[in-house]
Amino acid sequence: MGQNLILNMADKGFKVCAYNRTTSKVDDFMANEAKGKNVIGAHSVEELCANLKTPRKIVLLVKAGPAVDAFIEQLEPHLEKGDIVIDGGNSHYPDSIRRTAELEKKGLLFVGSGVSGGEEGARHGPSLMPGGNPAAWPHIKEIFQKTAAQAFGEPCCDWVGESGSGHYVKMVHNGIEYGDMQLIAEAYDILTRGLGLSAGEIADIFEKWNKGVLDSFLIEITYQILRKNDDDGVPIVEKVLDAAGQKGTGKWTAVNALDMGTPVTLIGEAVFARCLSSLKEERVRASKVLPAPPREAFGGDKQQFIDDLEQALYAAKIISYAQGFMLMREAGKEYGWNLNNAGIAQMWRGGCIIKSVFLADITKAFQKDDKLESLLFDDFFKSAIEKASPGWRRVVAQSTLWGIPIPAHSTALSFFDGYRTETLPANLIQAQRDFFGAHTFRVQSGRGSEKLPEGQDVHVNWTGRGGNISASTYNA
Amino acid sequence: MGQNLILNMADKGFKVCAYNRTTSKVDDFMANEAKGKNVIGAHSVEELCANLKTPRKIVLLVKAGPAVDAFIEQLEPHLEKGDIVIDGGNSHYPDSIRRTAELEKKGLLFVGSGVSGGEEGARHGPSLMPGGNPAAWPHIKEIFQKTAAQAFGEPCCDWVGESGSGHYVKMVHNGIEYGDMQLIAEAYDILTRGLGLSAGEIADIFEKWNKGVLDSFLIEITYQILRKNDDDGVPIVEKVLDAAGQKGTGKWTAVNALDMGTPVTLIGEAVFARCLSSLKEERVRASKVLPAPPREAFGGDKQQFIDDLEQALYAAKIISYAQGFMLMREAGKEYGWNLNNAGIAQMWRGGCIIKSVFLADITKAFQKDDKLESLLFDDFFKSAIEKASPGWRRVVAQSTLWGIPIPAHSTALSFFDGYRTETLPANLIQAQRDFFGAHTFRVQSGRGSEKLPEGQDVHVNWTGRGGNISASTYNA
Repeated sequence: MGQNLILNMADKGFKVCAYNRTTSKVDDFMANEAKGKNVIGAHSVEELCANLKTPRKIVLLVKAGPAVDAFIEQLEPHLEKGDIVIDGGNSHYPDSIRRTAELEKKGLLFVGSGVSGGEEGARHGPSLMPGGNPAAWPHIKEIFQKTAAQAFGEPCCDWVGESGSGHYVKMVHNGIEYGDMQLIAEAYDILTRGLGLSAGEIADIFEKWNKGVLDSFLIEITYQILRKNDDDGVPIVEKVLDAAGQKGTGKWTAVNALDMGTPVTLIGEAVFARCLSSLKEERVRASKVLPAPPREAFGGDKQQFIDDLEQALYAAKIISYAQGFMLMREAGKEYGWNLNNAGIAQMWRGGCIIKSVFLADITKAFQKDDKLESLLFDDFFKSAIEKASPGWRRVVAQSTLWGIPIPAHSTALSFFDGYRTETLPANLIQAQRDFFGAHTFRVQSGRGSEKLPEGQDVHVNWTGRGGNISASTYNA
Repeated sequence: MGQNLILNMADKGFKVCAYNRTTSKVDDFMANEAKGKNVIGAHSVEELCANLKTPRKIVLLVKAGPAVDAFIEQLEPHLEKGDIVIDGGNSHYPDSIRRTAELEKKGLLFVGSGVSGGEEGARHGPSLMPGGNPAAWPHIKEIFQKTAAQAFGEPCCDWVGESGSGHYVKMVHNGIEYGDMQLIAEAYDILTRGLGLSAGEIADIFEKWNKGVLDSFLIEITYQILRKNDDDGVPIVEKVLDAAGQKGTGKWTAVNALDMGTPVTLIGEAVFARCLSSLKEERVRASKVLPAPPREAFGGDKQQFIDDLEQALYAAKIISYAQGFMLMREAGKEYGWNLNNAGIAQMWRGGCIIKSVFLADITKAFQKDDKLESLLFDDFFKSAIEKASPGWRRVVAQSTLWGIPIPAHSTALSFFDGYRTETLPANLIQAQRDFFGAHTFRVQSGRGSEKLPEGQDVHVNWTGRGGNISASTYNA
């Protein structure tokens, strides 16, 4: 990753100094990949810093965690006020919040930058999501924006915001990626087990979808995957073990959503779906004893259903991104970040795993109104989801009857139906909490009475037994 | 809470010493509620400890967090080896793990006990879930089991397991409570907005359900709530603001499930549903611009649908408890606890918010086989869910078409359908991860080939471009 990013920067006309604590790696790199490029090698941190003009701009690509702090500690004696330390690893954003503050006290400018796109992205143009000390941005802007992927004439890199916001946005990006992948997997399952289509037939459908609203890197690689056969002519994907790994930033996003109290349900379900997939042996045992619903042949119009599924996937994706931007909105409030929403969408348009045409529409929505409360309030997305809803509902209902698990598609629909509902049944939950725990509740606006005054915590003696004292001890 | 627990213990024939740092509260209590009871008051920690026989058994009911540690520190100079410190507050289980270990080093026995049932439970019989240092149990067993609620001739208290397991199980209890409440709220919403029934009609349905498989405290209070009218004859519940609070142990359970990699989806959705409910003003704005599906009159058999809904609620509840016990199973492995599964179900049968007839069936399932992999493998629950499935599917499909949000009912069904599926579409996810990140994958058992050997990490060059080297840098 580090080598590829260096080569990429050098190709863009910047002189780069390469350092690795295993100095033989530096020598190998200089003698091979970096040969003839505008790269110089350094064999020590001291040499690295001596080679750089001030303000120094140093990008760390080391394992997230203590290794980042250890490297910064090594650097510090060789740095001067105003130098810039950039962590391009997959750090958890609270660490970047802390490091921004710690380095600021020492007169150093810290930047935590999300870097997405894997090895290939690093070499040819990644999505870069820098946040941290804003004073650093003018010094690194040109390098970052030229090194980044370009999408539709714009760099996939802009300043995200203060402090840990760069790594925060990268975390949400990865969570959204989990969601997109789960949605595609569900669509594949519905086409395979629901409609009984072959991998090749499904590839053709995804290829067609890739020319419409779903046009994206993940849809593109999906049909390429579906067409790749083993030597015996069997699609390789059908031989791949259905136990998906997860341990990283998808989980962080879901945990953060719970901590923030923001209903990012689709990413949550996507992470849990991977957890369930990984219980392969338990599922095999369960499959032998738990009943599947009786299968009736699909009586409807297949092409109509496939079109419905395209709309379902699109609508669920809109919900997922709306949830992701809601989460960033709450994080912005929580941490005092002025997040650049349109810029974030633009950064994701190219260079990274979730790159898509769809993100252009999100960019436009936030360019029109950067304070947009939710993507669902934007005219374009409002119309899109209105158009998609009937098919989306039919797909969820039909898959439910078929017994095909669709946790991401259905949670998205439940979110949409909850979000657009003025009065949810949470009134009953509040009444229950007041009943058993004297938790008190508030009264609906305009529904107050003598016994139930508006604008204050009200307790009702539901049973007529016991006292009227409200308790604060029940903490469920 | 503390006062009620003291009175309860005194009523059961135990002599109790009461202490509060606000000594006037002790005097008030002694002069009023405790008058004539087998209670003595203490005005200092020293006096408290001097009054107790060794091994001392001291129950703390203070705010979770640093206050518990501060109180233990105050106690320590007055304790002797073998004395027992019991934290009956709502502590987070990692704190109880730490305290068990810290006190053990000092020769003291720590117990972290879940206490559920609110004020009334504390007074007349709570559910008690003690875990910690097993050497403490013989000394406190009689007091705890007599003080606890009794359900069907058995105390709702047994030894949970080692270390922080008591508070862990209480946390899961509270998470399950969130799930049960959300399921009931969804059923209420379906009956209200789907079938167009009044609160009184719905109360009659819940009362009937309370005589069947759903017989439980929460169903009972639901119909009592639905029948309680304001002075103008309007059901109070309809005036309660639909913004549910959440901050506590439901969230802890969902976060823990993510950390453990266990798909406890129903509790996750229940917590998120509360989050969504709390965005009341945003929802009101959304309700004015986002389209509801066109409403067609319900053409089916209403009573059949109500019966289906009863089965849907029951089936989803089975899934929620199965997920909760899966989570405890994983926690047991993670922390090396020998959890008493049948005992846990028995502890929840009475005294607490989730008490139900249903828990008797869970108790039986684990009594038959304490190593039961999942409740869904037990014959009773297997048959129950088989019977419930058709109605459950019809309810989820119909609510989806109606546009009524049912995140808990539908995630439960997706979990069930995923759990009983031998091959999930996670194979595609693994192929995608290998495509874009060279993440490697495993091959399905029995599907190996020369190119795709079983039992090892395989990487495929999906595009024909680039190298065959698998990378470890992509960390999504």
